[in-house]
Order: sequence, then C-alpha cells, then structure tokens
Amino acid sequence: MEKVDCLIRNGTLLTMDAADTSIDSGCVAVKNGRIVELGSDEPLQSRPAKETLDARGGIIMPGLINAHTHLPMSLFRGLADDLPLEQWLNEHIFPAEAAHITPESVALGARLSLAEMLLSGTTTCCDGYFLANWVAEAVEEVGLRAVLGQGVIDFPAPGVPDPKENIPVAKAFVQKWQGRSPRIHPSIFCHAPYTCSAETLRLAKQAADELGVLFQIHVAETRSEARICRKTHGCSPIQYLDRLSLLNRRTLLMHAVWVDETDIRIIARQAACVAHCPESNMKLASGIAPVPDMLTAGVTVALGTDGCASNNDLDLWAEMDAAAKLHKVHRLDSTVMDAGTVLRMATIEGARALGLDREIGTLEIGKQADLIVIDTNQPHLTPMYHPRSHLVYAVHAADVRHVLIAGRPVVRDRQLQTIDGDALIRQARQMGGIISGKG
Amino acid sequence: MEKVDCLIRNGTLLTMDAADTSIDSGCVAVKNGRIVELGSDEPLQSRPAKETLDARGGIIMPGLINAHTHLPMSLFRGLADDLPLEQWLNEHIFPAEAAHITPESVALGARLSLAEMLLSGTTTCCDGYFLANWVAEAVEEVGLRAVLGQGVIDFPAPGVPDPKENIPVAKAFVQKWQGRSPRIHPSIFCHAPYTCSAETLRLAKQAADELGVLFQIHVAETRSEARICRKTHGCSPIQYLDRLSLLNRRTLLMHAVWVDETDIRIIARQAACVAHCPESNMKLASGIAPVPDMLTAGVTVALGTDGCASNNDLDLWAEMDAAAKLHKVHRLDSTVMDAGTVLRMATIEGARALGLDREIGTLEIGKQADLIVIDTNQPHLTPMYHPRSHLVYAVHAADVRHVLIAGRPVVRDRQLQTIDGDALIRQARQMGGIISGKG
Repeated sequence: MEKVDCLIRNGTLLTMDAADTSIDSGCVAVKNGRIVELGSDEPLQSRPAKETLDARGGIIMPGLINAHTHLPMSLFRGLADDLPLEQWLNEHIFPAEAAHITPESVALGARLSLAEMLLSGTTTCCDGYFLANWVAEAVEEVGLRAVLGQGVIDFPAPGVPDPKENIPVAKAFVQKWQGRSPRIHPSIFCHAPYTCSAETLRLAKQAADELGVLFQIHVAETRSEARICRKTHGCSPIQYLDRLSLLNRRTLLMHAVWVDETDIRIIARQAACVAHCPESNMKLASGIAPVPDMLTAGVTVALGTDGCASNNDLDLWAEMDAAAKLHKVHRLDSTVMDAGTVLRMATIEGARALGLDREIGTLEIGKQADLIVIDTNQPHLTPMYHPRSHLVYAVHAADVRHVLIAGRPVVRDRQLQTIDGDALIRQARQMGGIISGKG
Repeated sequence: MEKVDCLIRNGTLLTMDAADTSIDSGCVAVKNGRIVELGSDEPLQSRPAKETLDARGGIIMPGLINAHTHLPMSLFRGLADDLPLEQWLNEHIFPAEAAHITPESVALGARLSLAEMLLSGTTTCCDGYFLANWVAEAVEEVGLRAVLGQGVIDFPAPGVPDPKENIPVAKAFVQKWQGRSPRIHPSIFCHAPYTCSAETLRLAKQAADELGVLFQIHVAETRSEARICRKTHGCSPIQYLDRLSLLNRRTLLMHAVWVDETDIRIIARQAACVAHCPESNMKLASGIAPVPDMLTAGVTVALGTDGCASNNDLDLWAEMDAAAKLHKVHRLDSTVMDAGTVLRMATIEGARALGLDREIGTLEIGKQADLIVIDTNQPHLTPMYHPRSHLVYAVHAADVRHVLIAGRPVVRDRQLQTIDGDALIRQARQMGGIISGKG
C-alpha cells in the first residue's frame, strides 16, 4: 500500500460535509497536502505513514476559519477598553497606529496573531489591513492559509500617504501575490462606505472583479453609521452599496449589524456574504446583527473575531459560544443558532464566504488537509454526549492539541512548529513597552 | 526571620482591596493558611519559606468566586441543548435526574465539577442541590471553599421523597456541617417561588435565619415566571418574596432577570444580594438582567455560571467576558460594566454576597490565602497594557497555573494536587455512558 505523509487517527471524526458525516472512531490519511482517505480507524490506521498523530479519543475536525481579522492590531490588544467608540478610536487606536505602524510592526503584530490563531486551531483567516505585503510575508513564513486584503481608504494611511494611490497600491499588492503561494489569496479591503468616496468604492470593486479577488468592506456596523448614511444618501448602507454595484458573490460584508429585511433580501439576491463578529459588536456596543434572519434568507454567514484591539483576542471558540448564546437571549428563543449551525459558520460557511469551499472547510477526500485535533481528556469536556455541543459550548482554545495546514503539522502537542513563540512574545512585549511609553 | 509555608512571587499582584492596590512585581507570604505579608518582590522573596511558587511575571490575584452552581449536574453537560426550556427540562434534565441522581452520582458529578473549577482558578463556589451531604463530602475531599445549600422544593426530590421533610432535611444538613470544616458553609437553597409554597418559603427562610446561614433562591429567571407570578400573586416575583419577608442581607437571589426599578429598590433596601449568570441566561434565552441598574442602586452583584447542564461549563473567565460584553451591546453603551467592575463581581463582590468578605475575595494580610497565578507568557496575552483588561477580555481557564486554597496548593503547574483527574474522567465517562444508554 502506498505510504502516506501523515495519519491522524483514533478520534471522533467530524467531517462537516454536506451530509454532516461523523465517524465515532475515525482516521484521516494525508499525502502531498491533501486528504487522500478517511474513514474508520480500523483498518485505516494500519496504512504505512511517515508520521502518525494519535487523537487519543479526541475530536478530529476541519481547521477553523476566521472571516474577519486585522492581524497587526494584536499589538494594541487591551490598549484601551470600555470607552465610547469615538474616544477609543480617536484618542487611542488611531494615534497608536499613526505613531507605531511600520512594515516591521505590521510583520510583528501579524506573526503574534498568527501564533495565537494556530494555537487555537484557526487554519485560515481573512484579513484586512494596510502594508498588507508584510502581513503576507508573515503568513507565508508561519504557514497559515489566508485571504489578505490591502486597505483602501480616502485618507493618508500606513504605506499609502497619498490617498490617490490607494487603488493602484491595492492592485499592485494583488498582482504581486496572485499565484505566488498556494496558501495566500490576495484581496482588496475597502475600509467602509463612510471613509471612501463613491468613486473609490466603485473603482476598488471594479479592480477586485477584474482581478477575480474578494472585495471586503466594513458596513452597517454602528447605528450612527446607518443614520448618517440615510441622511447623506437617503438609504441604508446596504442599499447604498447595492446602488454602487458593489454587491456580488465576491463581496464580503463585515459586521452588517444595522440591516433590515429589505437589506437582507438585497444581500441574498446579490449572493454577497457576511462576516458576523458578535464579540466585537458586543464589546464596542455596536449592536446585534440579525443573523438568524440572514440564514433564513439563504445568506452565507461566516464568523470572525475582528481585530484584537476590539475583542480582545482571536479565539473562534469563544466567538462560536457568543454567537450561539447572544441571538438566543436577544430573541428570547433558545432554539435559534443551534450548535451545528454555529459550527458550520466557523468552518464550511466561512470557506464559502471566502470562495474557498472547494478547497477547505470540510474533511473530504481531495480537499486540503487543514485539520485540527481537540483533546477531550479533560474534566470540562466530560462526559461528551454530543461532540458538536462541546465544540460550541465547552471547548476552549487551549484544548487544541494538533493543527495541520495543507498537510503540514504546524502545531504538535500544543507546541508551535513554524515559529519561535518565546522570541515572538519577547519582541511583542518590547514593542508594547514602546507603544505604552514604558519601553 | 520566621519561616513561612509558601511564597508566591515574581508576578503582578492584584490585591482587589478597597484601594484597588496593585504591585508590578509583587510577592505574597502565606502561613497557616493565611496571608501574613504581601508587597514588593524585593525584598520579600528572600524570606525563608517551605515552598516557593514563581509566577514568572504573570498575575497573582484572589481566587475566583462562583456564586451559583449545581455541581452534580456536570454529569448532564451537553446532554441536550438548543431546545425550548420546558422541553429541555421535562424531556431531558428531569428524567435524567429522576433516573440517575443517587448519593454516588452526586459525589461523582460534584468531584468532576470541583476539578474543573480548580483547574480554572475558582476557589470558592456557592452551590444548591439535593443530597447536599455528598456534595459536602466531595468538597471536603477536594479542598475547595464552598457555601453548600440543601435543596428545598415542594415535590419529591432526590434524597427527600416526602416533600413534608424538605425543611427538616435541610436543617439537619446545616446542623451537621456547621462548624465542622473551616471551608464549608452550609446553607438552605429554596428552589424557586413557583416550586415552593408560601409556607415552605417562609419556614425555610426562618430556619436559615435561625441557623444564621445563607438563604439561596432562584427568582425572576424567565419572563413566563414573572408573568405567572403577576397573575397568581398580583405582583412581581421580587415583591412576592419581599411580602413573605424573605429578603435580607443573608438572602442570595439567583438570576433576578425580570426585575424592574421598583424591584431593584426593594432588593437594595433589604440588602439582599444577586448572583448574575449571564451565560446561562443567554443560552436558555431567559433574558438580560439589568445589572448596571442594580449596581447603581448599590446592590451587591456576584457572578455565577449556573450548572453545567445550562452553560455548559463552570468557567468564570468566559462568564466575566460575557458579563462585560452582553450589557454593553444590550444598552448600546460601551462604557457599562467595565473590566474592573466585572472582576470585582467575580472576587470581592462574590465574597460579599456569600457573607465571606472578611475572609476571602481580596489579597490582604490576615485573610485566607485563596489565590491564583495566571501564566501570561502566551501570544494571546501579549502585550499586556492593563492586567484587569486581560483578565476579563483575554485570559482563558487554561491560563491558570497555580491555585492555593487556605494556603494549600491544590493546583501546581496546571496539575490537580488533591484528586486523580484521569480516574475521575474515566468514572464520569462511564456514568455518561449509562446516562445516554450507551454504557
């Protein structure tokens, strides 16, 4: 029998495929970065393999997909909290960015975020920031899969002092990274409808479509944004984007909190996707997105943490727990957003939102071997009646034991394999000292 | 210099005292179960000690206090989720309790919960269940501090087949455990105003007051409970309890979700305390307690997880995060429930609610040495600008490295010291198999 690169065996296998197949004692065989076989542990485990990872009765499942991040902002984690949004942005975040965002700090912050994501079982993220080239270099080095958006905004920005250059810079970023790495998917990230002119928005979307890449945009995040849009443009933020022809299946709408039934119908009709970020929306008091209604309307909804400055982590386990619970209490209905639905948002629906569902998001033969192993031998995961319930309501980031991306073990026994975590922490701490003025 | 039992050194010391004193590089000295000295690491670290625990630059703080648990229910963790409350209770939880709750299973479920709490840095809990004697034995064995309430309900219950015996059984439990162990504080736990007659409620509270112990009661948890109370008694659940003279400083109100301004004034005037359980209230779609208003009115509000069947864990870190975020989004105000406020709810305010604030809840000379050490050498806790922010928004249960209760190290380097975790998991799994019919 042909030797495979890696066997991941002896765990409850959740494939997350269309039939939601699970195998009580399962095994996955990986070769050349892809899943070549999966099924019952007996007899698959006896297949010759260069490496075998024993799940020890835990859970084997697809790696998580974080649909909205600002990786370099981990350097501002907890810099300021519990303030009004404007004060938080204008007095803390924007000045810190103006003073400290450079190619070096972007690379450092991105690597810090990537390490945190790996250790918590996130194998793919969708990022939007400036100086995206340095984010891409970090992703390439650390080994995640990512959609990476170069920021477009009508203000001077890090690396783009002249806003007139914002779209050319974004296009150049996409062209540089298209086809360069199998794990990196460049994208264009327009900051928001209130920070970009109609012209910028139209041209940016046109560029994204011509290049065939994802167009990301923050939209309808706060009540005040929605109010100002109605005052300025006479319609909701979603209707405004639709009028500008920004919505299609290659558009990812971040937040989409202040949307009504009409907006949801528009999103569904245009097949645009939504990245739901419940913890950021809670912490910044933005509001509660009507996700159950979006799902009913057939909208693809992914899950994202948002940047570390507003969450304050990149932990999709906590995000799943929050997503499942928040909508229940908001609607006084304990049946909405059940565990299976939320788990799909963090896996296959995330993949779909990023246009990567043929490659990742489920464990199926031929797909990329992006998978994680959860250690369930712990008091807080005992007993286990329903793995999906545990994954959403009880598993923590630290329960992730092994992580593979494109078949490569990037975390083994909770240890980072592709980056020196201790050195990274030292560097990030030093940078934190400089940012806080104590360094 | 007199030798101490234990030095906990080299960490950011958060005392949580009235002045909110913190020491950047601090040390705590423990002798005979109490804190005998605390201050700067230099020179305190050179004091002779039988054992020294190095916090390695992490955080040293009071152990967390979980103000509402049903310890034995860990055996039903994730047995059923995402169902309407009545269906969840009547078709899953009540039948499981009727079939499987025995002294042995209560002891097993309690030990499982105690292990989970220790590993996540909870040093004190306030529990309510039946067969409380076996819960107490487990607490005594594992080494936590606890207020333990014997359940009173006007239905046949585990260990109390005849409801007429409910108050005598509760009194006997209190009398058996009063003064028996310095860490165990017996209490009376009346299930709810809708499951106990007015007579039962009055007599139970009278017994608790005569014995000088805490009276716990679930109240105003769901909208339907509040509606039925208005229909039956012509007033809100809180007003109903007040009329029955159940409210005083030795009364702990669990949940208190459906309370209005008048109710809050009554609670404040009678100096009763509240155990806020945001994650349970979210998951069961009970509602959002007006905690910011309670705090403004001067009510002591503690934090609780509720039982594992409805959360689905005993993790106060996740509970703090949820408490801080939920009220912000509910009020669209990012300044309510700041990190410091929430952290006090899980420490000193919890102690106050249980009547134990002279003994625990802060790190001060003379108080019990119930303290924990957080390992901050991790990507998701880097950089650290404000320890309180990290504790609420970024620290996870698995970041707890050492735990001392009454000066005794019960967790060292994330390892349980007083109970065999692996054997416990095996037993709980076996019991889970029996409960699910697969054993």
